[in-house]
Amino acid sequence: MCKRALQYPQVETPPPQPFLKSLKNTLNEILFADDPFGKIRNESKTSKKIELGLRHVFPILEWARGYNLDYLKSDVISGITIASLAIPQGISYAQLANLPPILGLYSSFVPPMVYAIMGSSKDLAVGTVAVASLLTAAMLGKEVSAVENPKLYLHLAFTSTFFAGLMQTCLGLLRLGFLVEILSHAAIIGFMAGAATVVCLQQLKGLLGLSHFTHSTDVVSVLRSIFSQSPVWRWESGLLGCCFLFFLLITKYISKKRPKLFWISAMAPLVSVIFGSLFVYFLHAQFHGIQIIGELKKGINPPSITHLVFTSPYVMLALKTGIITGVLALAEGIAVGRSFAMYKNYNIDGNKEMIAFGMMNIFGSFSSCYLTTGPFSRSAVNYNAGCKTAVSNVVMAVAVAVTLLFLTPLFFYTPLVVLSSIIIAAMLGLVDYEAAMNLWRLDKFDFFVCLSAFLGVVFGTIEIGLILSVGISVLRLLLFVGRPKIYVMGNIQNTEIYRNIEQYPQATTLSSIIILHIDGPIYFANSSYLRDRIGRWIDEEEEKLRKSEENSLQYIILDLSAVGNIDTSGIRMLEEVNKILGRRDLKLVIANPGAELMKKLSKSKFTETIGKDWIHLTVAEAVSACDFMLHTAKPDSPEKISREPEFNNV
Amino acid sequence: MCKRALQYPQVETPPPQPFLKSLKNTLNEILFADDPFGKIRNESKTSKKIELGLRHVFPILEWARGYNLDYLKSDVISGITIASLAIPQGISYAQLANLPPILGLYSSFVPPMVYAIMGSSKDLAVGTVAVASLLTAAMLGKEVSAVENPKLYLHLAFTSTFFAGLMQTCLGLLRLGFLVEILSHAAIIGFMAGAATVVCLQQLKGLLGLSHFTHSTDVVSVLRSIFSQSPVWRWESGLLGCCFLFFLLITKYISKKRPKLFWISAMAPLVSVIFGSLFVYFLHAQFHGIQIIGELKKGINPPSITHLVFTSPYVMLALKTGIITGVLALAEGIAVGRSFAMYKNYNIDGNKEMIAFGMMNIFGSFSSCYLTTGPFSRSAVNYNAGCKTAVSNVVMAVAVAVTLLFLTPLFFYTPLVVLSSIIIAAMLGLVDYEAAMNLWRLDKFDFFVCLSAFLGVVFGTIEIGLILSVGISVLRLLLFVGRPKIYVMGNIQNTEIYRNIEQYPQATTLSSIIILHIDGPIYFANSSYLRDRIGRWIDEEEEKLRKSEENSLQYIILDLSAVGNIDTSGIRMLEEVNKILGRRDLKLVIANPGAELMKKLSKSKFTETIGKDWIHLTVAEAVSACDFMLHTAKPDSPEKISREPEFNNV
Repeated sequence: MCKRALQYPQVETPPPQPFLKSLKNTLNEILFADDPFGKIRNESKTSKKIELGLRHVFPILEWARGYNLDYLKSDVISGITIASLAIPQGISYAQLANLPPILGLYSSFVPPMVYAIMGSSKDLAVGTVAVASLLTAAMLGKEVSAVENPKLYLHLAFTSTFFAGLMQTCLGLLRLGFLVEILSHAAIIGFMAGAATVVCLQQLKGLLGLSHFTHSTDVVSVLRSIFSQSPVWRWESGLLGCCFLFFLLITKYISKKRPKLFWISAMAPLVSVIFGSLFVYFLHAQFHGIQIIGELKKGINPPSITHLVFTSPYVMLALKTGIITGVLALAEGIAVGRSFAMYKNYNIDGNKEMIAFGMMNIFGSFSSCYLTTGPFSRSAVNYNAGCKTAVSNVVMAVAVAVTLLFLTPLFFYTPLVVLSSIIIAAMLGLVDYEAAMNLWRLDKFDFFVCLSAFLGVVFGTIEIGLILSVGISVLRLLLFVGRPKIYVMGNIQNTEIYRNIEQYPQATTLSSIIILHIDGPIYFANSSYLRDRIGRWIDEEEEKLRKSEENSLQYIILDLSAVGNIDTSGIRMLEEVNKILGRRDLKLVIANPGAELMKKLSKSKFTETIGKDWIHLTVAEAVSACDFMLHTAKPDSPEKISREPEFNNV
Repeated sequence: MCKRALQYPQVETPPPQPFLKSLKNTLNEILFADDPFGKIRNESKTSKKIELGLRHVFPILEWARGYNLDYLKSDVISGITIASLAIPQGISYAQLANLPPILGLYSSFVPPMVYAIMGSSKDLAVGTVAVASLLTAAMLGKEVSAVENPKLYLHLAFTSTFFAGLMQTCLGLLRLGFLVEILSHAAIIGFMAGAATVVCLQQLKGLLGLSHFTHSTDVVSVLRSIFSQSPVWRWESGLLGCCFLFFLLITKYISKKRPKLFWISAMAPLVSVIFGSLFVYFLHAQFHGIQIIGELKKGINPPSITHLVFTSPYVMLALKTGIITGVLALAEGIAVGRSFAMYKNYNIDGNKEMIAFGMMNIFGSFSSCYLTTGPFSRSAVNYNAGCKTAVSNVVMAVAVAVTLLFLTPLFFYTPLVVLSSIIIAAMLGLVDYEAAMNLWRLDKFDFFVCLSAFLGVVFGTIEIGLILSVGISVLRLLLFVGRPKIYVMGNIQNTEIYRNIEQYPQATTLSSIIILHIDGPIYFANSSYLRDRIGRWIDEEEEKLRKSEENSLQYIILDLSAVGNIDTSGIRMLEEVNKILGRRDLKLVIANPGAELMKKLSKSKFTETIGKDWIHLTVAEAVSACDFMLHTAKPDSPEKISREPEFNNV
């Protein structure tokens, strides 16, 4: 029927696969893309298999054997450094969550131990984080007051931690870790900046020494609450806070300029706490408007397993809080673990990490801890301090335990305003203005996602920000599939290459033939669009040819190289396009359909409808076949199509 | 730095576009893909512009000028044919919606007139549909009983029709018609089959002469309700129903076998009604367990604009019902309009159709009609009867008006069981078993979508079925983006072509070079997957080379031909991959990035990071450049990368 360029083979249809096998392959690709059990499977001996399995579940078995004194030295140094940061931060963040300050210390004891056994990152330092703390307060606080019903509030916090851990473990076990990827880089930048702004605003309470405060987190309610209380602002408290904030920011600046001096900014919070406490103790400042922490219980974590409430009417609230804070904590922890692993060139299995995070939160909820993860700030200090393994977490836990057992009375005089300064100083680093500008430069849509997350958090609630940014990100994916680009291809002179004529203006189009490239999968969501768009391209081309009185259009070559997949709506669309073209005496030619496409096109007999000879391996070959027909013979008249449809199900 | 094959030009970065212009282009492509105003824009004279604009809004101005007597003859015949179907069907469906039967006739009077003026389909016949009727009953009935509070129920039905019309008009005006495409072909097949099953089950009430019935629509509740009432089943009613059902199915079968005899099945419902009524009248069957319609009011549609309730506490219910039934009605109407337009080879603008549907429902809600659309069965009869223009709708409306004015008393003795038979006969055609089997053969995932829609409707509610099928369909789109295929490419012998080695087993791979093709966009949702997967391909390749003691791997060529777009997470991923490869002494080479990609890669300086000389127009060129380096020189040592990250925001 038409000349076949001899050097090209036919377009192949891959051999059919049994349904179950192809299902297994697909699921494997979705869930086990990184082939985590490859090593175990390849091992033949059963005892060896068990050993590898145990090492897979408990990475400590892997690295403990090579552990030596040099490592220990480094780990002790970094462990003590992060402990000095963990203690004041822990107390501050617990206050942010409206929980007793001591919980912040408890949470730096049990979870790091669990993580040291099960976690695979060498650099991650475990602890509580500001955003999840605030979110816990905002979500639980909406229904249960921490002031009026502190016991129920506390128990709900444990329960939501338990649910968060359970969800994290399940996600890991079911290998659904990819669900966390729904939070895009851009969304996280905007969300973090918004959350940091909100957290800073909350600190104005401590800074101004206020005792009443709004439960909302949006900027309007907070500012209204603050300015309505202007008569009771305490200037002493504000002044002290600003001094400490200034000190903390200076130390951060120094450490930023000279990374070797990382310990200055790492030690600064503890130094502030000590100086603040001494200041209050010697000047009796607690009687002059400076609020203090007061008594902290001595002793390590009491068990809290009996405090989990599964029968309360609030259990759904705890579940919801647990899931949302748990996902956020996971996203941060895994991103942090991955970043550091990349710098030290080792691998982290996201799903395994999820199980580790989950277990540490489950055990945490049994021992009076609330939600923990791998905070960025603490992990960065750990890394800079030269940690070698997760032993640094153990050292930190021991240091915190020592504090809990013997040193809690020392925090009696610690002023709350110092804690607020510590939080503000930590939060300011999260507003990454430059990254946002970079988004605007690179990708306007990502900037839009980032901005909506930010505005949603600042003017709405943290959840609104999250939902907005996730929603818009997902919308973008759908938009990509819903509106794939179609462009005209032209020949690059002196080659057999065809490319987008917008990208390569020197590429020349052909007369009588139009080559359209579809840049995405053909699915139900875009099939009517593609049909309309192809029609419009052809109309425009015919109009142009008519005006210039050139040859009329005869062939439409569809380059399907970039069409990754097709569904039944898409196949129907191609059939319709073929029929419509047939009525207009145009011939449809297909170039380079992939494996998946060929499988479906041949099953649906579409290959037979348009003729196997009209499916080519490359655009060049399709063009030469059309050229041949144009110059030697009239094209076959398009297949007769019955115009009598069979609609009878009246 | 490396040999450039002279015949190939460089990969081009398209010239930068001002932000607003590119935004405008994007929005145009999303919302005005079919360029509806192209003609008007190209016209220079203002008067002509206005004329074209009016014709655009009211297609009747377009086709009325060419209208002639031949057309009228055809339209009158088809109009009367569809009226004979519309009257019994209208009464039946109104009963299905728990509304007074007369509403079914009202709804075949005003809306077809509006559609005749504004609609652009020549074949669509306007009327009520079974599924939307049942859905109205199910949704409104959940909160307001049609038996206990018929007036409120009726007013809510009008209000929800108004909201449906408003939503349809807005979707059309905002050119958001593509949102309807979220219902895939597969979802509609399953959904329709499920709805038809449910509707048939509901008819058992009429068939068995029951007076009490469950409000649920799921198969379990309905069967339980029926069998719990087995003592009060009326065999007379059942027998009569089965006879008529048999008659209707036989006529359908005849029309299916001989499309010329379409009028047999079209007339059958009216014939059944007449015979049924005569039967009851002469045998006084109403005293022997046969329920009858009873009195119908005479006269055409009374106004109902004052009955719309916007202040009632149920307004949200009406809104929700309106939106869901409105979307369903749109999906059916537009699909039907498009199918027939395709057969007669004319174009339909989906957005314009939505406005027409919307206006007809708004005017309908003002004149005692409930939700109408373009039902498939009625339109198919219209088409088969040879309609030429929308005048057939006007003829039908006039015939219905005559009935309303003079003939309603004739329906007094019409047995309900005949209406049930008519509905069942119509519904059985909607269960498209063959189409479902075809889905299974072509695309398992589509079959799964279809099946879940079916099971959701049959065992849950209609809404559950809808949500399930839409949810799963969207999940599939996300999965496509989340898990793009990556495959290894090989050279097809004696050519410069590289293709998937799984599809073309004869393609040969190269030593020292691995060519990976990414089959989809690079977005946040897949960037960690792609990073892991690329890593695994390289690991496996290195393992293989080590075993066979061949040359070690040196170059990774990424073929980006099919990567339609990239976001900032994707760019970060490429940067990370480049760094990781650099540490392993491997060189990353890029082949054929598209316009969008080149724009972003050069803005982000990635092109400079990997070196412009390592970005090639084709895979073949990339391979020849790598080959040249392999045979003449050692590759450049990968750029020195600082291993000291700058993390200081502690």
